[in-house]
Amino acid sequence: MNTPTATTSSYAPLQNDTFIRACLGLATAHTPVWLMRQAGRYLPEYRATRAKAGSFMGLATNLDYATEVTLQPLERFPLDAAILFSDILTIPDAMGLGLSFALGEGPKFAHNVRDEAAVAKLAVPDMDKLRYVFDAVTSIRKALQGRVPLIGFSGSPWTLACYMVEGAGSDDYRQVKTMMYSRPDLMHKMLQINADAVALYLNTQIEAGAQAVMIFDSWGGVLADGAFQEFSLAYTTRVLAQLKKEHDGVRIPSIVFTKGGGLWLEEMRDLDCNVLGLDWTVNLGKARTLVGQHKALQGNIDPNVLFANPAQIEAEVAKVLNSFGAPHTGAGTGPTHIFNLGHGISQHTPPDNVAVLVKAVHEHSRKMRA
Amino acid sequence: MNTPTATTSSYAPLQNDTFIRACLGLATAHTPVWLMRQAGRYLPEYRATRAKAGSFMGLATNLDYATEVTLQPLERFPLDAAILFSDILTIPDAMGLGLSFALGEGPKFAHNVRDEAAVAKLAVPDMDKLRYVFDAVTSIRKALQGRVPLIGFSGSPWTLACYMVEGAGSDDYRQVKTMMYSRPDLMHKMLQINADAVALYLNTQIEAGAQAVMIFDSWGGVLADGAFQEFSLAYTTRVLAQLKKEHDGVRIPSIVFTKGGGLWLEEMRDLDCNVLGLDWTVNLGKARTLVGQHKALQGNIDPNVLFANPAQIEAEVAKVLNSFGAPHTGAGTGPTHIFNLGHGISQHTPPDNVAVLVKAVHEHSRKMRA
Repeated sequence: MNTPTATTSSYAPLQNDTFIRACLGLATAHTPVWLMRQAGRYLPEYRATRAKAGSFMGLATNLDYATEVTLQPLERFPLDAAILFSDILTIPDAMGLGLSFALGEGPKFAHNVRDEAAVAKLAVPDMDKLRYVFDAVTSIRKALQGRVPLIGFSGSPWTLACYMVEGAGSDDYRQVKTMMYSRPDLMHKMLQINADAVALYLNTQIEAGAQAVMIFDSWGGVLADGAFQEFSLAYTTRVLAQLKKEHDGVRIPSIVFTKGGGLWLEEMRDLDCNVLGLDWTVNLGKARTLVGQHKALQGNIDPNVLFANPAQIEAEVAKVLNSFGAPHTGAGTGPTHIFNLGHGISQHTPPDNVAVLVKAVHEHSRKMRA
Repeated sequence: MNTPTATTSSYAPLQNDTFIRACLGLATAHTPVWLMRQAGRYLPEYRATRAKAGSFMGLATNLDYATEVTLQPLERFPLDAAILFSDILTIPDAMGLGLSFALGEGPKFAHNVRDEAAVAKLAVPDMDKLRYVFDAVTSIRKALQGRVPLIGFSGSPWTLACYMVEGAGSDDYRQVKTMMYSRPDLMHKMLQINADAVALYLNTQIEAGAQAVMIFDSWGGVLADGAFQEFSLAYTTRVLAQLKKEHDGVRIPSIVFTKGGGLWLEEMRDLDCNVLGLDWTVNLGKARTLVGQHKALQGNIDPNVLFANPAQIEAEVAKVLNSFGAPHTGAGTGPTHIFNLGHGISQHTPPDNVAVLVKAVHEHSRKMRA
């Protein structure tokens, strides 16, 4: 292909394909593990790089810094996947809403989207405005030298809409739900645009070198039953329908994670993705019974377990692995598990405890297969 | 009974028993409705009384003010129950932790409970320290003159523990979960004391005139599967085992509400209570199938619906009522529904919209029975 984006053949072959195999329901010798927000503030080396970059967006938009911090956790821990260092809100930023991160605070937009005029101005952004993300993907993929696969990601259409309407984080989602309940037409219009933007964004990440993609529906769980299906799930479905399933002859697994979405697992079973991410409220054994023949499951230890001592961390890791039960070990596809936290790692986590967790996942999951 | 607390016989007979009947699984002509935090900041008359009282605790500890604000929403809306105006954190305050509410902020304790020495100091508080609550119950019960029943309440043992360890609200529950994962022995000790305190507190409210009681497990839903059963549900069970089931020959229904607890409904089915409260993520039809023969269900409209316009509020009310379906209308007990929000009403709610909601519940639910 004569596109300016790198092709698979230009990269080193993948040495550890455990994560990709588990995503596709194929047997592995151990349960792969990676951690949401594994490149982050709990690592002193991350804080050092961020200090050099000056700001979060300074970090995310600088090719070298983004590459550096993505690889930092891999230098410390034998994780089975890397995830692009970026933010879920790059798309609304590229739409012109003006993303910033004040020190010690969450994301904030200069403009919010609360009326018909603001919605009318929205459009799928020019991907050139997100070039820094795709360049980072290619740079990280090269730097990984095939050690582990690289996951690309985006916020879900609904999650992006939450931030676009609220203009920042929220504890009651009053503005976005007010629009949803009082002007569902505007909300649907925004979600269509968001969905098409997310699909294009993820496909361009795949072309740039992402070997799997994840959709973070971080705020799907704040919706009422009924509203979730109409305003979140339907647009995740719209993204998945447009997503590349392979690139350069290699399959690209997709993961959907709805925080707080455990009640809707049966409906998520039919999503056209490979993996469902679960938070810690979900019983993995029950989830496997419900959807395990259809999807790999990813999750779901409480990140606060990492504040206990090593023996307790090991015991909780074993509980989570045992709750899923032994993954299938035969030929073909069957129930598989990717170990992860049920939410992003806390900035207060002692890094040594992460080492204990990763080791425990590998060791205990090998024993389960013996 | 020669106790200093008032006996049922000293009160006016109950005129509207719809709420009590629905709690007990008995047929009613309409679906009863009340709203969590119905006496609160969204009402200008509440804000006026609070201004006179000077502070939240000044309001809660003053007999006349507490009575006044409890009755305010009943003057505006034909609600089917009143709920004691108080706070879920009165027990830890009586334990000596020093509760305060800074203006515009959440609750805060002067002392927190994070180590063995602090846990060792905890004990079921002398109920005399909570006399202001029981006096308010009796005062409100009298002032109601039998119009509607009065609900007493408490935080759940786990929810109290969250605040006692964190010392305030939290968005990650890091301190309380650190104790739970690293010192489960301390956590269990605290939860036993909390459970016994909650049971005594609710029983004393019943003796003082409460006609139903509700346990708010506001933070049960932040626990991992497994931890919820061990650290929240087990202690709610311990409270219920000690609770008076009747007083002066009248049955006293009990309600348990775990926000975010929809995944554990099957396990909550066996609780020795009459009603399960549900948040808006739960499908009422599915919940009725799972537990409706065992428990009445209370809930569960998203409070943000109250920011839509009247026609949309009516449509959403109908959706929630239809999701539960027609309650049983025959003799004996069967599936019943108590309409409520899935969480406390927002302080920004226009009071007129509450009127629309209450009217819609009464009208639509009568039609469903026709």
